[in-house]
Amino acid sequence: MTRLVRDIGEFALIADLERALPDAVRSSAQVPTGIGDDCAVWRPNANHQSVITTDALVDGVHFRLDWTDFRSLGHKSLAINLSDIASMGAQPVLAAVTLALTGQEAVADLVELYRGMGELAATYGVVIAGGDIVRTHGPLMISLTVIGEGDHLLRRSGAKVDDVILVSGTLGASGAGLRLLAEEDRGLATAELLIGAHLRPSPRVSLGRFLATTSVTACMDLSDGLTGDLPKILTASGVGALIHTDAIPILPAVRAAFPSDALELALSAGEDYELLLTAPAADVPGIIAGAKEIGATLTPIGTITAESGLRLRAEDGQVHEIQSGGWDHFGSTAAG
Amino acid sequence: MTRLVRDIGEFALIADLERALPDAVRSSAQVPTGIGDDCAVWRPNANHQSVITTDALVDGVHFRLDWTDFRSLGHKSLAINLSDIASMGAQPVLAAVTLALTGQEAVADLVELYRGMGELAATYGVVIAGGDIVRTHGPLMISLTVIGEGDHLLRRSGAKVDDVILVSGTLGASGAGLRLLAEEDRGLATAELLIGAHLRPSPRVSLGRFLATTSVTACMDLSDGLTGDLPKILTASGVGALIHTDAIPILPAVRAAFPSDALELALSAGEDYELLLTAPAADVPGIIAGAKEIGATLTPIGTITAESGLRLRAEDGQVHEIQSGGWDHFGSTAAG
Repeated sequence: MTRLVRDIGEFALIADLERALPDAVRSSAQVPTGIGDDCAVWRPNANHQSVITTDALVDGVHFRLDWTDFRSLGHKSLAINLSDIASMGAQPVLAAVTLALTGQEAVADLVELYRGMGELAATYGVVIAGGDIVRTHGPLMISLTVIGEGDHLLRRSGAKVDDVILVSGTLGASGAGLRLLAEEDRGLATAELLIGAHLRPSPRVSLGRFLATTSVTACMDLSDGLTGDLPKILTASGVGALIHTDAIPILPAVRAAFPSDALELALSAGEDYELLLTAPAADVPGIIAGAKEIGATLTPIGTITAESGLRLRAEDGQVHEIQSGGWDHFGSTAAG
Repeated sequence: MTRLVRDIGEFALIADLERALPDAVRSSAQVPTGIGDDCAVWRPNANHQSVITTDALVDGVHFRLDWTDFRSLGHKSLAINLSDIASMGAQPVLAAVTLALTGQEAVADLVELYRGMGELAATYGVVIAGGDIVRTHGPLMISLTVIGEGDHLLRRSGAKVDDVILVSGTLGASGAGLRLLAEEDRGLATAELLIGAHLRPSPRVSLGRFLATTSVTACMDLSDGLTGDLPKILTASGVGALIHTDAIPILPAVRAAFPSDALELALSAGEDYELLLTAPAADVPGIIAGAKEIGATLTPIGTITAESGLRLRAEDGQVHEIQSGGWDHFGSTAAG
């Protein structure tokens, strides 16, 4: 029987595709980090590193046009890419945009999309540099590639036993906003805040730049939720983790809107686009204080362990082992 | 009435989208060439230039799975991007791949796609560095972004009056191959050659690298045909051109297969992915000889004129003015 993509899922597919490539094509002296981190890295010359990331949004899969306006969609399509650049501690420089269109789109909607992209690009000094418009018979797709630059880059692979695990901002607001959109419940006073967190996430670019100047040992951005993403750092670093669930920063608005599910939203709803990082315990106070100076909050939520796997310690002291495995985009039918 | 993309076409849409961006986001000191050339250009630091290009193929629009095998499709998806890098005279370094999949694809087909990409990447020392796999409800889409590097880059904007216009290789073979596929006529002895030119074009990477060391004044790659693409050089350079149609290099196999349409195929069928360039007349013999040393053919086909517009001089001496205007991807229903 023919094996289909949906039978094996995203991660096995990526492994199969990687194996199909000749060794010389997977990495080189100039391109030391190919497939595997938030961004691929290359060295234009001896004293410089560039990073590249690409992320796409498809109508009906990653967004719904009855839930988002085009300006927010433009913002988000760039934000999710800037978040990958931020997770490497790099400075974003330019973005190339590919739009797949049927021709039936309203020009004014696409102009709004570009306005949303342009506003966010201006905030971080990013140039929108060309791209490609292709015709399709399928759904609207917005695919961005963003280039960044940096001297010292953050990776997923440096977490050490006894390092403290920290997260920026708060978790779960995006998931709560998505649920409010799905339930068509916009009556809450905080609905706008939560829905805004889902539709217009803030990439942590300045924070990433600051973290690259510290002793942070590993960093990534949270797109698939803490329990989906932290295992990627653990696997890349060959370590385990213990998370104190009552330490996870969750907005009061999330707890108020979904009292029984707030923790679940924070752990696994994803799309918060906060940074998840590890650092030596002795340096944590200085790193938190430095982040505060640029307006960012960092909260310690656990520690790196020699014992492998991801364990969660609940408020009552009970410890649960989390089955690892990232978010499989072909195993889910949920939007977002 | 709402203006739709198909009402205004690709070029007016791009102009509208560009206007939607704040000035600061269209170019910068570090990103001098944004939207407009074959690639955008940025300067990682003072002594270095990087280029980026992105190009996508959509099932049912740019290819048909009953006409191409997956290995050829992988080759072509990378080749069309390498051709853009070649047209700037840059060295390709890495490619990032975005696949939009329904989940119903056979894994073995995608592995073949990657084999085709990997083989071509290995030829030119390009690393396939990650990318993104997204779920879609629509057609298979393969979107590549390729990064290149170069000290001296070729542009579209430097053509000077009295420069000679040259083209690499031959024109029309890809269009002839596409027509044979459409006519299901594979009986010709040369069908394999012509269909191969359409399915597996050769990007002129080495030639582009060589041309960047010469006095070439303008260069681009031919994806939309001579009459679709040459006007882009003319507009960017503020000049006109006179082409001698009997000088255009056309394979005997193209003339044999389509005796009455060979010139039309060479002028406008597109997808030849040859280089189109201009150079001072005195330097042309040396440039042709240098190209020959690396196995490339360059043929003079006309001259740059002060009079604007594109004119074709036929074998009988008659001169026809070509209405300018590139290929509008929303005005056409033809595959390819």
